[in-house]
Amino acid sequence: MMYPPKASMEGQSKGDRTRAAILQAGLEVASTEGLEAITIGRLADRVNLSKSGLFAHFSSKEQLQLEVLQHGRNEFVTRVIGPALAETRGEPRLRTLLKNWLGWNWSNDSRGGCIFLQAAAEYDDREGPLRDALVESQHDMVEFLVGAAALCVEEKHFRSDIDPRQFAFELYALVMAHHFHIRLLDDPTAPKRTRKGFERLLESAK
Amino acid sequence: MMYPPKASMEGQSKGDRTRAAILQAGLEVASTEGLEAITIGRLADRVNLSKSGLFAHFSSKEQLQLEVLQHGRNEFVTRVIGPALAETRGEPRLRTLLKNWLGWNWSNDSRGGCIFLQAAAEYDDREGPLRDALVESQHDMVEFLVGAAALCVEEKHFRSDIDPRQFAFELYALVMAHHFHIRLLDDPTAPKRTRKGFERLLESAK
Repeated sequence: MMYPPKASMEGQSKGDRTRAAILQAGLEVASTEGLEAITIGRLADRVNLSKSGLFAHFSSKEQLQLEVLQHGRNEFVTRVIGPALAETRGEPRLRTLLKNWLGWNWSNDSRGGCIFLQAAAEYDDREGPLRDALVESQHDMVEFLVGAAALCVEEKHFRSDIDPRQFAFELYALVMAHHFHIRLLDDPTAPKRTRKGFERLLESAK
Repeated sequence: MMYPPKASMEGQSKGDRTRAAILQAGLEVASTEGLEAITIGRLADRVNLSKSGLFAHFSSKEQLQLEVLQHGRNEFVTRVIGPALAETRGEPRLRTLLKNWLGWNWSNDSRGGCIFLQAAAEYDDREGPLRDALVESQHDMVEFLVGAAALCVEEKHFRSDIDPRQFAFELYALVMAHHFHIRLLDDPTAPKRTRKGFERLLESAK
């Protein structure tokens, strides 16, 4: 499976719970200021651990950053991909996907932005394991969108000559513009404009 | 005028040339790693000045960052806005705008990305003069796009019921997706997909 399922909270040891709290604090920092703003010391403060206490869970800053990114992926699956997959394939699934995706961007638990779009600006010029993990996550995301659009063709919700990859490109474009207009320009019309663009995109595919 | 014209290189003193070299080096750093990666020491190294030599031109890191951002605006006007304004208003102007805008993103002098999209990720969570200057630049950019789309309506290249602000939102969305797919995903099809999305956007406005 592309995205691992979220770990259940039941039956977690104290160590597991501490680890989960560290990752959640990391996600909050990464969604607002970026993965580079994560430091062992800063997260230790946020979860009331000593630095060495935190080191017991994560052996390096990079490992911590990688696991925070993975935690972001898991959360995205729980909140955005999962509900879409539970919906009827084709157009209903796309609509559910967009609805939850915009909610993720706009006001997730961290009150920050999207960890992936934030990280894209950080790692588009760097080499290394963090960039590699981010690129993999975004390739998976694009492929998920392509697949969701292809199902619309299969279900005859879209015309047979629609290019699912083009559709995916334009759909992600709208979500990026939504993020930018909400987060930087504080534009309250962004959700409405995003939905309007989405309806136009759907109409042109029918 | 919204954007100040670019200063001519002629008749520049040595001090002016040094200042211009510092700002250009700053733009290169900001377009790749971000405005926060600019430090007095780092730029001093790049232009072969001592730190105190650089301080003679810019009194603080923040002033330097603000002037680098302004330099980015000036360059954007020279390379993207100016050529568009020189074109016939309406659809021809929009086409020239997009062509140069994509070139700006993809391979400007810095071999980096777009300073504005990079800075958006940095400052969408911070208060202060840098965010204010960035937001102003992006408001101006959006208003320029809205105006360019409104002229398409006026010239009867677009239908009269087209909302120029919606058009501007969707146009900027495509440019953001282009930047993301080129820079992070290294996707060579991004320019083609962006142009295809643009044609669809134009068609739907006619």
